[in-house]
Amino acid sequence: MKIDPKLDLVFERFVEVSPELVWTAWTQPEHLKKWFTPAPWTTVDCEIDLRPGGVFRTVMRSPEGKDHPNTGCYLDIVANRKLVWTDALEAGFRPSRRDAHLGFRFTAALLLEPQGRGTKYKATVMHGDEESRKKHEAMGFQEGWARALEQLVEHMKTVRL
Amino acid sequence: MKIDPKLDLVFERFVEVSPELVWTAWTQPEHLKKWFTPAPWTTVDCEIDLRPGGVFRTVMRSPEGKDHPNTGCYLDIVANRKLVWTDALEAGFRPSRRDAHLGFRFTAALLLEPQGRGTKYKATVMHGDEESRKKHEAMGFQEGWARALEQLVEHMKTVRL
Repeated sequence: MKIDPKLDLVFERFVEVSPELVWTAWTQPEHLKKWFTPAPWTTVDCEIDLRPGGVFRTVMRSPEGKDHPNTGCYLDIVANRKLVWTDALEAGFRPSRRDAHLGFRFTAALLLEPQGRGTKYKATVMHGDEESRKKHEAMGFQEGWARALEQLVEHMKTVRL
Repeated sequence: MKIDPKLDLVFERFVEVSPELVWTAWTQPEHLKKWFTPAPWTTVDCEIDLRPGGVFRTVMRSPEGKDHPNTGCYLDIVANRKLVWTDALEAGFRPSRRDAHLGFRFTAALLLEPQGRGTKYKATVMHGDEESRKKHEAMGFQEGWARALEQLVEHMKTVRL
């Protein structure tokens, strides 16, 4: 993965849950819905077809009750270690049919590495141009991913696999 | 592969060369440059990194000498049988950085099936909306793929692997 600081955003943390628990949180809809959107937003629907070309769809609900659907496609999957998807494509690798609802497209790569009893959690979000990266950053990328990850850890600590 | 006639274009032929020869024509730049663009257009450059996330780049030259670069990304590869790529992404699955030079994005899936001494050759080209499919069709999709395939067969009949 070649990172370009002009085009990419990187979020990195150590978390005190195993890669297997983080993986479960990201790949099972019933878990993902518990943590994916920083409160008071909620994730009210989620569809996951975990294979390259499979759909990754979520519906986020704003505090005012407005629903925001997001549809993407998985690209590269290594269980418990690597998850890559994009919203530039839909199920079956079809180009997205709608305008980008954020105003830009992205590809996200999540890498999980065992570290002691926990996980080194690294997300790289790639954009097609600098303007898109800046827009995503200004929307609160770092804060959003940090808050969601706190919710993930909080939720998964209550789960026994 | 779910085909949607409103969004997709399908090109299908039987050709009298083996799937292995067709595969070579599509995946080795020195061969691809010989047939890829219907004459009098030519393909003057080609870069192929044959793995999911790898680049597929060509430069087509018009009869007037104007160069048209195309950059895409491989998505799914089964040697001698299946090749899937899109121009909605670039190398490393990064969203495309430029506006679509054709005015739309596509994902193409080429399927090769041995049939006697030859190959059943089926290309499905997927679009994000009906307008893009119509535009691509009106640009001469069927004629272009037919002429290029004739050139492919003509060239590969002169090649011994």
